[in-house]
Amino acid sequence: MQNNLRINGERLSWRLAELATKGAIEGGGVARLALSDADRQGRDLVVSWMKELGLAVTIDGVGNVVGVRAGREDGPLVMAGSHIDTVATGGRYDGNLGVMAGLEVIATLNEAGIVTRRPLAVAFFTNEEGSRFQPDMLGSLVYVGDLPLTQALATPAIDGARLGDELTRIGYAGPAPVGKPGVHSYVELHVEQGPVLEAEGFTIGAVEGVQGISWTEFTISGQSNHAGTTPMRLRHDAGYAAAEIATFARRLAREIGGNQVATVGALTLSPNLVNVVADRALMTVDLRNTDEARLQEAEKRLFAFADEIAASEGVEITRRTLARFEPVAFSAPLVARVEAIAREFDLPVKRLPSGAGHDAQMLARVCPACMIFVPSVKGISHNVKEYTAPDDLTAGADVLLRLLLEMAE
Amino acid sequence: MQNNLRINGERLSWRLAELATKGAIEGGGVARLALSDADRQGRDLVVSWMKELGLAVTIDGVGNVVGVRAGREDGPLVMAGSHIDTVATGGRYDGNLGVMAGLEVIATLNEAGIVTRRPLAVAFFTNEEGSRFQPDMLGSLVYVGDLPLTQALATPAIDGARLGDELTRIGYAGPAPVGKPGVHSYVELHVEQGPVLEAEGFTIGAVEGVQGISWTEFTISGQSNHAGTTPMRLRHDAGYAAAEIATFARRLAREIGGNQVATVGALTLSPNLVNVVADRALMTVDLRNTDEARLQEAEKRLFAFADEIAASEGVEITRRTLARFEPVAFSAPLVARVEAIAREFDLPVKRLPSGAGHDAQMLARVCPACMIFVPSVKGISHNVKEYTAPDDLTAGADVLLRLLLEMAE
Repeated sequence: MQNNLRINGERLSWRLAELATKGAIEGGGVARLALSDADRQGRDLVVSWMKELGLAVTIDGVGNVVGVRAGREDGPLVMAGSHIDTVATGGRYDGNLGVMAGLEVIATLNEAGIVTRRPLAVAFFTNEEGSRFQPDMLGSLVYVGDLPLTQALATPAIDGARLGDELTRIGYAGPAPVGKPGVHSYVELHVEQGPVLEAEGFTIGAVEGVQGISWTEFTISGQSNHAGTTPMRLRHDAGYAAAEIATFARRLAREIGGNQVATVGALTLSPNLVNVVADRALMTVDLRNTDEARLQEAEKRLFAFADEIAASEGVEITRRTLARFEPVAFSAPLVARVEAIAREFDLPVKRLPSGAGHDAQMLARVCPACMIFVPSVKGISHNVKEYTAPDDLTAGADVLLRLLLEMAE
Repeated sequence: MQNNLRINGERLSWRLAELATKGAIEGGGVARLALSDADRQGRDLVVSWMKELGLAVTIDGVGNVVGVRAGREDGPLVMAGSHIDTVATGGRYDGNLGVMAGLEVIATLNEAGIVTRRPLAVAFFTNEEGSRFQPDMLGSLVYVGDLPLTQALATPAIDGARLGDELTRIGYAGPAPVGKPGVHSYVELHVEQGPVLEAEGFTIGAVEGVQGISWTEFTISGQSNHAGTTPMRLRHDAGYAAAEIATFARRLAREIGGNQVATVGALTLSPNLVNVVADRALMTVDLRNTDEARLQEAEKRLFAFADEIAASEGVEITRRTLARFEPVAFSAPLVARVEAIAREFDLPVKRLPSGAGHDAQMLARVCPACMIFVPSVKGISHNVKEYTAPDDLTAGADVLLRLLLEMAE
């Protein structure tokens, strides 16, 4: 084991900057929606780097790209991966870091002349963001066998295109069988996309799992009335009911505690006029918890509260589930190794859950998987202002290098 | 005094229906925006009726139309009035009823051969609704001398036209001096536009005054964050702050009690996405009370609460006043007469405030003024479904007839 081996942080930042020129947008950001022309340019660049680094590149039927570095033995791959598609107003780190750091690990090993026992691989998966095709994490979901390829290829884009046609158009409908070769273990280095590490002074996050997600849309129907002439007791105010639910969501998160979060991000009133009691409100509640039982408790209490408000205000409230995912736990031994390696490197480390979804949660269905987080300044994410300091990028890639080496031996 | 004299309810309903053919829209409603072609058609019809009834019609510089029926003596006018402009999706009763009932009173007196001591007048004022030109109640405001004619004529329409040009275009820039002759007393029969009379089983509302109005717009600036990755304690959620203010407004109305009302009719979040903490909320709070001191108390408590929430959530909240009117009290003797006449006619009567603005509140600045309300089914107002039963229209017009006769003698 090469305990003193470190990656080249400047080369890592250079690759991130080069990749960010593909689909570059104003403000230093990137728009590289999945399977767009910009995505093709990004893919072409990364594939050319993979080849320069001596990796054997395979592309499967949904466009997932895997670059393999042979080990002393054959067998399942020790894989670093993430995605290079972005949201429409994205930054250069989200996803890209995990892939570029994987390449940097390969470059570092090449320079050091190290050949691992198991083969190493760097992968990027198609359409992680879900901005152009639903669902998100589509490529990794196909990779682990939980979404049939034919169904994935038929997925319509928001712009009307079909995923399979777009794959062919940009030249990334590959011949490799999906999910082959098998994966021994998977590590994803990623920016936190939240403010915790920076706010609390940590450099490395040892990600224990991904929060379960529950998205509910409430439609509230009341009665439109004149704001001046309708006494309070005769109102059926959809806007008021919505506001009560929104404040309850905050109370709920506080009462359940732990890592429970609750967000009302979308709320629309109609007719939305200063002097008219709203007859309709459309709102969403986003609940997340790493503990499925607590998440279910949060849902139950939220729904019960909505029913109470509907009765007391005399409005009708219907709800529908927009999304529901159970929490995912990463491999406990791998999480422990991330923590231990960070300590060894004198990097302040904190265990934390991921609030966002990642390809790693799909890979966790078929192999031991884990994630390494590095700080996002101010927690800004999905925004051209997304930023992680170079030293933190380097620290995260060093931990990735060490962990990959351990797993590959 | 002709105590047994009653108006002809069928003729009143006929005139309302005929007038509703001018600017008729789907669903039985009316779109007669001030000084539009439809308004001209409505004005022409009403003026032709005034002339048929023998009234001397004058039109002033802002298009207010007054039809005068001579009395046994000269002197200030005993006036019935309202407006015939409507909102874009209006009904046939709002405003129109007061004018048509005035004509019906004249027709009834003509048939009975009664000449009053003081001259009687029926008036309709320009742009009461304020849907096309701001402010609302513009014509009556000019009539009482509180808005200079030149300023009124320069008022821009929402469609870019100038009020003075539109007046000339439709032929209603009249030669009569504004506010002449003077008004002895003013009575306005109007639909309630609220649900109270119907809900409580009253036919006549003796309107004590008009509520004071306070409209505040709050702009809340927080921080946009990922709904999954941002712990509750690190949030600066503009949407949550808005929801707290909205629920506080309801609490405030309940605690102040009386006729205090509070409405959050407009609330917009941005970016308004299910999984993003809102960084901006724009909302309005509409407060009304007949008591100025209590209205000021409500404002003070609302603003203090907003400041508290701004501090506790770490958001910035700025506010601006969109509208502020002090309450108006109608002539106590006239309100008492409305109540007494209704009782004499065996009509269930309730004293109540007006939650909406009316031309009567402008006339109240220069003479004793009052209003008579009749029920609005379900309180529906500014809507093609606005409806008042024919018996209620008749009852209201009978009270109007009797009160005008009393004042004119």
